[in-house]
Amino acid sequence: MAILVVGSVAFDSIETPHGRVENCLGGAATYFSLAASYFTPVRVIAVVGEDFSRENEAVMTSRGVDTAGLERANGKSFHWTGSYLQNLNEAQTLKTELNVFETFSPKIPAAYQDSEYLFLANIDPVLQENVRSQMSGVRMVCGDTMNYWITGHTEKLARVLKGLDALLINDTEAKMLAKNDNLVGAASRILQMGPKTLIIKHGEYGATAFFSNRSFPSGTEVVTLPFRAPALPLAEVVDPTGAGDSFAGGFFGYLASQPEQTPLVFKTAMFYGGVMGSFAVERFGTERLQTLDRNEIDLRFKLFRGLSHLE
Amino acid sequence: MAILVVGSVAFDSIETPHGRVENCLGGAATYFSLAASYFTPVRVIAVVGEDFSRENEAVMTSRGVDTAGLERANGKSFHWTGSYLQNLNEAQTLKTELNVFETFSPKIPAAYQDSEYLFLANIDPVLQENVRSQMSGVRMVCGDTMNYWITGHTEKLARVLKGLDALLINDTEAKMLAKNDNLVGAASRILQMGPKTLIIKHGEYGATAFFSNRSFPSGTEVVTLPFRAPALPLAEVVDPTGAGDSFAGGFFGYLASQPEQTPLVFKTAMFYGGVMGSFAVERFGTERLQTLDRNEIDLRFKLFRGLSHLE
Repeated sequence: MAILVVGSVAFDSIETPHGRVENCLGGAATYFSLAASYFTPVRVIAVVGEDFSRENEAVMTSRGVDTAGLERANGKSFHWTGSYLQNLNEAQTLKTELNVFETFSPKIPAAYQDSEYLFLANIDPVLQENVRSQMSGVRMVCGDTMNYWITGHTEKLARVLKGLDALLINDTEAKMLAKNDNLVGAASRILQMGPKTLIIKHGEYGATAFFSNRSFPSGTEVVTLPFRAPALPLAEVVDPTGAGDSFAGGFFGYLASQPEQTPLVFKTAMFYGGVMGSFAVERFGTERLQTLDRNEIDLRFKLFRGLSHLE
Repeated sequence: MAILVVGSVAFDSIETPHGRVENCLGGAATYFSLAASYFTPVRVIAVVGEDFSRENEAVMTSRGVDTAGLERANGKSFHWTGSYLQNLNEAQTLKTELNVFETFSPKIPAAYQDSEYLFLANIDPVLQENVRSQMSGVRMVCGDTMNYWITGHTEKLARVLKGLDALLINDTEAKMLAKNDNLVGAASRILQMGPKTLIIKHGEYGATAFFSNRSFPSGTEVVTLPFRAPALPLAEVVDPTGAGDSFAGGFFGYLASQPEQTPLVFKTAMFYGGVMGSFAVERFGTERLQTLDRNEIDLRFKLFRGLSHLE
């Protein structure tokens, strides 16, 4: 089933202990789309500027990503400048130039209307809500957000949270959103804010899903125990940018590819999230996500299983 | 098979967001012994002072722990004062009073000589080496250490590391010991220093074992992939003191209870480590470890499996 994703398509300038790149293709929707494209059809809603080339777009289309919803506006594309020199686990944002995103008003092509899955990548909650309200018939909505929206746009974010089947955020964001320093306490608070299920990403330590009694359709077993998927211990992290978005892409892509969303399918999807995140950080930008194949992905899935299973 | 443990038996004064306790029974050897006692016979080598009561000793003996090697010296017992008010994940040491441990020279009772398993809890590496050299016939030696010995007693510690089958330390200690900020790189360096296997504890995120080609007897499969055991997300951590020692007790206790140390037994032991750590933090001091039963432990083991397994 097709996923519709709304989020940023951008250029990134990044420095890590492994070097630096200028203006490489990035953005949450880009990483998400590429990662999800190995599992299911993906359609993108985003805006880019005049500096966005046909080659940039081909990175997505050559993976089968539908870019009919990629609007071209006058001006420059969104540009993020960040550094991991201080801490490989957390980006230090040096500059955020919204550019064409400042005046973006998402328009959904008619051909996208039958999308059954919707991913609201990390952008202004007003834009997330805008797309959400245009896609009221979808089967499942997942979303991401970040510190900036949690602290500065609480009410707008609250509206988005109410409409989510699953929210994906990291530890710091979860504790900040819930105003609670204990992960279990924070999860319980966030589940009261709307999301039926919460996935908290722990970076190199994997991710934990917290379920509610609304997580699965009635008639399905109620899952009370959280579920923790591992991350692969990596000898070399070249560029952590996009790891979380790639996790989301692997997770939601696998989920959308399955006929039913049982607890086991959901948990398996978390493993695929970790798998796609582990690939993303092996090279700068989206490079590694452009050239995978499903066999390579499933081999790594087996590694993740071996890493965590008593068998 | 019996485990011989050498380490501290002490009194702790602890403050956490849940309250404070003065002079409660603690020490690495105490937590280790109690946790391991649910799996296998345990014998203790340590020194205590005149303030150590029969009631204190009964905490260990009532769990079947052999205290014939618990020496009583003139003076006061080791006393540690710590706080978790700033950070529940890392103790802030306010005061360390070694007292009777300053002049401790471990003597091993004749009845302990047939111990097949040796655990060198976190104490002066000179004492660890002393006991190690008196127990040359043991089948397996595991050890722990901490920042203080890593930075200030590097050469003494290096001698201990050479004799270890497994070293158990936390992330910060591993990175410090290896002078490498990447966990996989740090693990690879530490395995070159002597230990055949390395377990890195991640607190609330579980623990990872890194294997070498010396981890298991020749003829056994060579395990190249690390193994990650989860920790249980807990809504309430009353007192984190002793979590790592309890992990070690559960891990090594289970291992010593098994006829063979296959990779699967080793991995299962890591799960039991996590299980015992999760119990330890539910109450102040050793309280929770005193009143468990094996059924309760195995039920939690099943929780850990459900938390991490696709099944």
